[in-house]
Amino acid sequence: MSIPLSIKWNNNRLEILNQQKLPLEVEYITLETLEDVYDAIITLKVRGAPAIGITASYGLAATAQYYETNSLEAFHQLLSKDALYLAESRPTAVNLVWALERLRGAVQHAETVQEAKKQLLEEADSIYEEDEASCRAIGEYALSLLEGHTKVMTICNAGTIATAKYGTALAPFHLGSEKGKQFQVFACETRPVFQGARLTVWELQQSGVDVTLITDSMAAHTIGAKEIEAIIVGADRIAANGDTANKIGTLNLALLAAAYQIPFYVAAPSSTFDLSIGNGKTIQIEERPSEEITHIAGKQVAPDNTKVYNPAFDVTPAHLITAIITEKGIIYPEYDKNIVALLGTTKGEES
Amino acid sequence: MSIPLSIKWNNNRLEILNQQKLPLEVEYITLETLEDVYDAIITLKVRGAPAIGITASYGLAATAQYYETNSLEAFHQLLSKDALYLAESRPTAVNLVWALERLRGAVQHAETVQEAKKQLLEEADSIYEEDEASCRAIGEYALSLLEGHTKVMTICNAGTIATAKYGTALAPFHLGSEKGKQFQVFACETRPVFQGARLTVWELQQSGVDVTLITDSMAAHTIGAKEIEAIIVGADRIAANGDTANKIGTLNLALLAAAYQIPFYVAAPSSTFDLSIGNGKTIQIEERPSEEITHIAGKQVAPDNTKVYNPAFDVTPAHLITAIITEKGIIYPEYDKNIVALLGTTKGEES
Repeated sequence: MSIPLSIKWNNNRLEILNQQKLPLEVEYITLETLEDVYDAIITLKVRGAPAIGITASYGLAATAQYYETNSLEAFHQLLSKDALYLAESRPTAVNLVWALERLRGAVQHAETVQEAKKQLLEEADSIYEEDEASCRAIGEYALSLLEGHTKVMTICNAGTIATAKYGTALAPFHLGSEKGKQFQVFACETRPVFQGARLTVWELQQSGVDVTLITDSMAAHTIGAKEIEAIIVGADRIAANGDTANKIGTLNLALLAAAYQIPFYVAAPSSTFDLSIGNGKTIQIEERPSEEITHIAGKQVAPDNTKVYNPAFDVTPAHLITAIITEKGIIYPEYDKNIVALLGTTKGEES
Repeated sequence: MSIPLSIKWNNNRLEILNQQKLPLEVEYITLETLEDVYDAIITLKVRGAPAIGITASYGLAATAQYYETNSLEAFHQLLSKDALYLAESRPTAVNLVWALERLRGAVQHAETVQEAKKQLLEEADSIYEEDEASCRAIGEYALSLLEGHTKVMTICNAGTIATAKYGTALAPFHLGSEKGKQFQVFACETRPVFQGARLTVWELQQSGVDVTLITDSMAAHTIGAKEIEAIIVGADRIAANGDTANKIGTLNLALLAAAYQIPFYVAAPSSTFDLSIGNGKTIQIEERPSEEITHIAGKQVAPDNTKVYNPAFDVTPAHLITAIITEKGIIYPEYDKNIVALLGTTKGEES
């Protein structure tokens, strides 16, 4: 039993776990070019906001090593162009833009191109290491909130393979397993892309966690029948007032938690907050191709010419969230005050 | 454009639409033996409470034509044995037992085996014709409730192919299409068996209804984003107090309807009521095989040895139901009084 890693960086070589091949095959692929990185993000080979940010960071840092110029101005231009290119691969993932901007910021005062190249690699390493530490902290805080609870539901995969290590929503289960606390986790399969069935079940099994798979449609019945005590989810973007964009289906669970009067926790690193947006209403909801719903594993399940609505995310309003767990601490309502109190007011400007 | 039929009975020949082949292939298969009928029900080739009842009725009546006895006592024994056998194919479908008991009741006073055989065929015909009339009445009542609404969500397939004709929850859309009223229907795909994607989308397309497919996980977001005005579902069993067992995922929608303050309607023929049970707590929830969730179209989506919880139904408590639409009229709360007032007290004893 060991916690799987999604990103491996050795000797300037970027390898990622191909999450599209899970759970039947554990395949690590090398990303050679910026196009490989873009492709890996857009085709969900790497997914999860922090893992996308880390992959993009290493991808950009590695690519910049090959810029053939001694002009700092030309270097910055190339870097900006490539950062912009990667940023477009997944518009809802705020960590992506945050990580790319952090890399650009790191070389702001470089005096030579050589120095800038070195700084980019160091900054990518820092982003990785900080994310691992951050996830561990989130796991510890989440464990404190889940004290006395064992039956917990989750959706999608806010797990170790969505981050550097440990994950966010799944961090307490991985850490709990290490510490000898056994949870009973109920994983929603997470249509249309089955991240719960394919990824969450797999990675929790690897860590020895007791995990049961259900369809998303079974959530309400299961909360009642199995006496679920809490729901914990990740986040792709959190607004200044606590409104949270996450995988489609999260809002369903938040409303069910309210109906059953059980706590609904969001676990996410502080980089997920976007304080430049006041509330969730302005969050752009990406729509994905119809085929994700009409076809499964290459087989057609709906008739020809089926009209489909396929939003990738939904926005859970802050009033449905019991607490937001970050690496810096646990944030409770009222979020508009307490988010700023914990994270400071400059967060939005950073990105 | 025309409304598809799931059961065809011609010259003592029972044909059903093989709903497992939909939506890619429209195949009618002949059920030759009682085992064929049992198999068609248990493998979901025919599904939907009324259609199961009708298929079982014709199946039993057809089989009885071949009983080689002139003894009425032996005839009744054979009939009871075969009825019991068919009744076990789908324990939650109360219409199945109701229809089989109705056939047995019809031959109670037969004076010869020949007469009994004829009566069985006539009774099966009556069950079919009454269901068609019943669905049309449900459709008319539902249309009156949906007056002024166009955007409606549904789950599973309480449609024409789940009944003799028209369906229950989908009857207003088929009838509306005939009358020139255009709805915008949002069909939940209905995991794990995809009845929404495979069947509801298909049959509404056949009738020219504007239908959009979503995953079950998208229900909450879609209600908000698309301004859904009502939810309408079918039922597999309704208790004396209005608690309703229906396809897993129905309870999710009922709780969402409450959260969004939109009406939640159950449409079902009176044969779906089981007044012998006081409330939903005693309804047996059938659990189905793990492979329905871990494998899709023969492809494995979850890891080996995945622990699965796969309840086929859930129970929506009566207080979440705005109205129950039957062929005899619309029932509003308080259900414990109003169900008996409309249907009479003898209903439970019939089955």
